[in-house]
Amino acid sequence: MKYFEDIKAGDVAELAARHVSEADIIAFAVKFDPQVFHTDPEAAKQTAFGGLAASGWHTNALMISMLVERFKTESLAAIGSPGVETCRWLVPVRPGDTLTGRQEVLETWPSKSKPMGFVRSRTDLANQHGEVVMTMVGLGMIARRPEAAA
Amino acid sequence: MKYFEDIKAGDVAELAARHVSEADIIAFAVKFDPQVFHTDPEAAKQTAFGGLAASGWHTNALMISMLVERFKTESLAAIGSPGVETCRWLVPVRPGDTLTGRQEVLETWPSKSKPMGFVRSRTDLANQHGEVVMTMVGLGMIARRPEAAA
Repeated sequence: MKYFEDIKAGDVAELAARHVSEADIIAFAVKFDPQVFHTDPEAAKQTAFGGLAASGWHTNALMISMLVERFKTESLAAIGSPGVETCRWLVPVRPGDTLTGRQEVLETWPSKSKPMGFVRSRTDLANQHGEVVMTMVGLGMIARRPEAAA
Repeated sequence: MKYFEDIKAGDVAELAARHVSEADIIAFAVKFDPQVFHTDPEAAKQTAFGGLAASGWHTNALMISMLVERFKTESLAAIGSPGVETCRWLVPVRPGDTLTGRQEVLETWPSKSKPMGFVRSRTDLANQHGEVVMTMVGLGMIARRPEAAA
């Protein structure tokens, strides 16, 4: 297992890619974010997006899937998250895009009351053209190494 | 249509409710956030959550569905969002919960370069016990009234 003590500011992880199809974009949006620029390829052409684009919340859902895949690869003792400090959707995610990601640890500090620590990290997702489509600073909670917690 | 000019700081909207079932929680998490406290009711009992809890990203997806339903009721000229300023998941969302929501406009300002304006608003979701489960400050872009934009 990888514990809080094993994480340091400056650590960088590359995240596994995700392909995004038109069907994926529409399926997520019909269920959660049914605005025409996310659900209707024809009507989307008349909007500020100029064509179908993924919901930012869909992009974020893909991001957490990429992060959790990494957590599992590392056997990270991740126990949840208190939230997000900031998130910006910079470039529309389009049908056929392939997203890759990178997470960098910005800061870590131990909990004063529980056997865990906090990690502040920045995650960026980019498309196949090298454009950063989303950048987020988020918080994670990681269990302490059992001997350290005891 | 409701345009940027129709929105003022202090405006409050109540959002339609969403029920969250165990099957909903697991389906979202298996696809996007497959950590045991989101996917496995038995294994979740041994985690810090003490039982199955919805992914925070699932809660946020439900939030945008509640907001978009409101946009449609109001015929709001919503044209997208640049992102989120902050989001905190305060209380776990559990199987069987019913979430209600409230959005309050904090600030509005016109774009200097495009026929639209920005809206900063806070959205809170609460469960059936009156506990706030999530609070978010987000940004939206709303088209200007056509005569004002011309």
